[in-house]
Amino acid sequence: MGEFELLARIRERLQPPGPRVRLGSGDDAAVTIPGGATVTSVDALVEGVHFSRDKSSLAQIGTKALATALSDLAAMGAEAGEAYVALGVPPDLDEDGCLELLDGLVALAAETGTELAGGDVTRSPALSLAVTVVGHAAQAEDLITRAGARSGHVLAVTGELGGAGAGLLLLEPPTGQRSYFHPDSGGKYDREQAQLVARQLEPQPRLAAGRALAAAGAAAMIDLSDGLGGDAGHVAAASGVKLQIEAASLPLAAGVAEVASAAGQDPLELATSGGEDYELLAALPAERLGEAAAAVAATGTKLTRIGAVVAGEGVEIRLPDGRLSKPAGFDQLDRPTSR
Amino acid sequence: MGEFELLARIRERLQPPGPRVRLGSGDDAAVTIPGGATVTSVDALVEGVHFSRDKSSLAQIGTKALATALSDLAAMGAEAGEAYVALGVPPDLDEDGCLELLDGLVALAAETGTELAGGDVTRSPALSLAVTVVGHAAQAEDLITRAGARSGHVLAVTGELGGAGAGLLLLEPPTGQRSYFHPDSGGKYDREQAQLVARQLEPQPRLAAGRALAAAGAAAMIDLSDGLGGDAGHVAAASGVKLQIEAASLPLAAGVAEVASAAGQDPLELATSGGEDYELLAALPAERLGEAAAAVAATGTKLTRIGAVVAGEGVEIRLPDGRLSKPAGFDQLDRPTSR
Repeated sequence: MGEFELLARIRERLQPPGPRVRLGSGDDAAVTIPGGATVTSVDALVEGVHFSRDKSSLAQIGTKALATALSDLAAMGAEAGEAYVALGVPPDLDEDGCLELLDGLVALAAETGTELAGGDVTRSPALSLAVTVVGHAAQAEDLITRAGARSGHVLAVTGELGGAGAGLLLLEPPTGQRSYFHPDSGGKYDREQAQLVARQLEPQPRLAAGRALAAAGAAAMIDLSDGLGGDAGHVAAASGVKLQIEAASLPLAAGVAEVASAAGQDPLELATSGGEDYELLAALPAERLGEAAAAVAATGTKLTRIGAVVAGEGVEIRLPDGRLSKPAGFDQLDRPTSR
Repeated sequence: MGEFELLARIRERLQPPGPRVRLGSGDDAAVTIPGGATVTSVDALVEGVHFSRDKSSLAQIGTKALATALSDLAAMGAEAGEAYVALGVPPDLDEDGCLELLDGLVALAAETGTELAGGDVTRSPALSLAVTVVGHAAQAEDLITRAGARSGHVLAVTGELGGAGAGLLLLEPPTGQRSYFHPDSGGKYDREQAQLVARQLEPQPRLAAGRALAAAGAAAMIDLSDGLGGDAGHVAAASGVKLQIEAASLPLAAGVAEVASAAGQDPLELATSGGEDYELLAALPAERLGEAAAAVAATGTKLTRIGAVVAGEGVEIRLPDGRLSKPAGFDQLDRPTSR
């Protein structure tokens, strides 16, 4: 397989450049005319760290790589624009495999209005994708950082939590629990379980909800990639406030309680530190909550009030029994690399 | 080592955001106000494929990763703007090692006016850096693609060729030639050899020369990463013309002839297919050549006329003995991964 030949086959799959992209893939660099404010984020997925080809299809890996990058644009309230992909190809992945992976990525790009405007392909000992995404807004003031949470704001979260963590438990059952979790020994996943697995393997960036929240008064926003506890901690630190979360109000995804219980884990643990749900956490003035919930509902996702911003620092989770828990941040580099 | 702690230490090393960057590293995404036309390129370097920690210092690896990415902006005639780095950290690289690598990258960033505005750090089986660079121009029409070469144009190249290829021969001598090449057995590299090794390990992006060429009438431009033969082929294909190169006129770097001869290789082979010189090849109207050479000289680099653009397709290299050679493209994925 040659790089140039592969690149030519990749380019056949791309849509023609849109109005903002003057020159797409194929020259030394892409040329765009952005206008307004530009938002840029890069996210890398590496085999054995973030995914395994045993558990994910190649198309799912491509989709997830773009989804996790776009999720950062969602958290800024930006519109998706362009994506640039650095693909590391291991010796055992052939050209058709590369294209299958790209097809997953291109499908989500089309769905979200993202243009794949450039990239790089290189050999690599492990399959890896570093995806840089560029988003846009009319002006910088329209974008929502992590730093705007103020005492008196309410905290709200889009969609449902714990699903990705429960999905991971289904994919990688704890020792001794194969009979419950493993589809080979217990038949197939039921519908609820399949949805949890999909939450883990095919996360959806909340782009429309992010823009709706930004327009409806969100003052601070972050996407939940590391887990609610850790990510709330980033908002608290950037804003110089304390975030109080009511565990009883957290919107658990359907089936999370069952999976957690069978695995001997606390479902709240999955919801607060499982990570990878890629929902959005927002702080906003209490009087804007109704408007924000309606705007998010119009995008097909719900918005749930889960707590409040107060003076102080850090994150405090009030458990249903009244005890307080201070979650430890989930730190990606410390994560076990068993996958 | 935790990701958050490492990121905090990285951020300490960054300069405060410049006027274009409204929000730098540390939020979900960076926010910039670009204005005009934006140029974006991504390049990845992977250990064992593009470099080896035996031969390069960590700082050199960081420098080279940014340099190869910036070279694509140089080839567009753009001004360097922002860089975003996805760093894959192997188990045997500690936090200090990561920072040493970043220091090399940050030093070149400062030298070239590039702002490190964001990134991602993840575990990885092999050390890898995917660097996305964003450049700027007042308008898209100021940028030079590969597609503008026309019959009647002259071909010119900046700087000197073959140096990076000769440097690689010095670093990785052919079997049986340790006594000549290897510093351990023949003493140290002499000054000329050390410069060739530096051409391989610390390439310099020709940003100022690229802007000078763009302003002085360059109609097509490409940076020589894959080797003159292959890269000229890209210009020929994109422009729909034939590129005729006079081998005798190629500006060989000092010492290339000696290294090639000792290795039993043709110095012209190193100059045309060695790759990684990161000089610029430009096609331009003959009447602008003098102006272009003066403008490039003012940036501290020379410009050498090496051929002409004619009707037809592909690349033709006229050897000193009058024979014609049609270079095969150098294709990165086909490259031996011995390093």
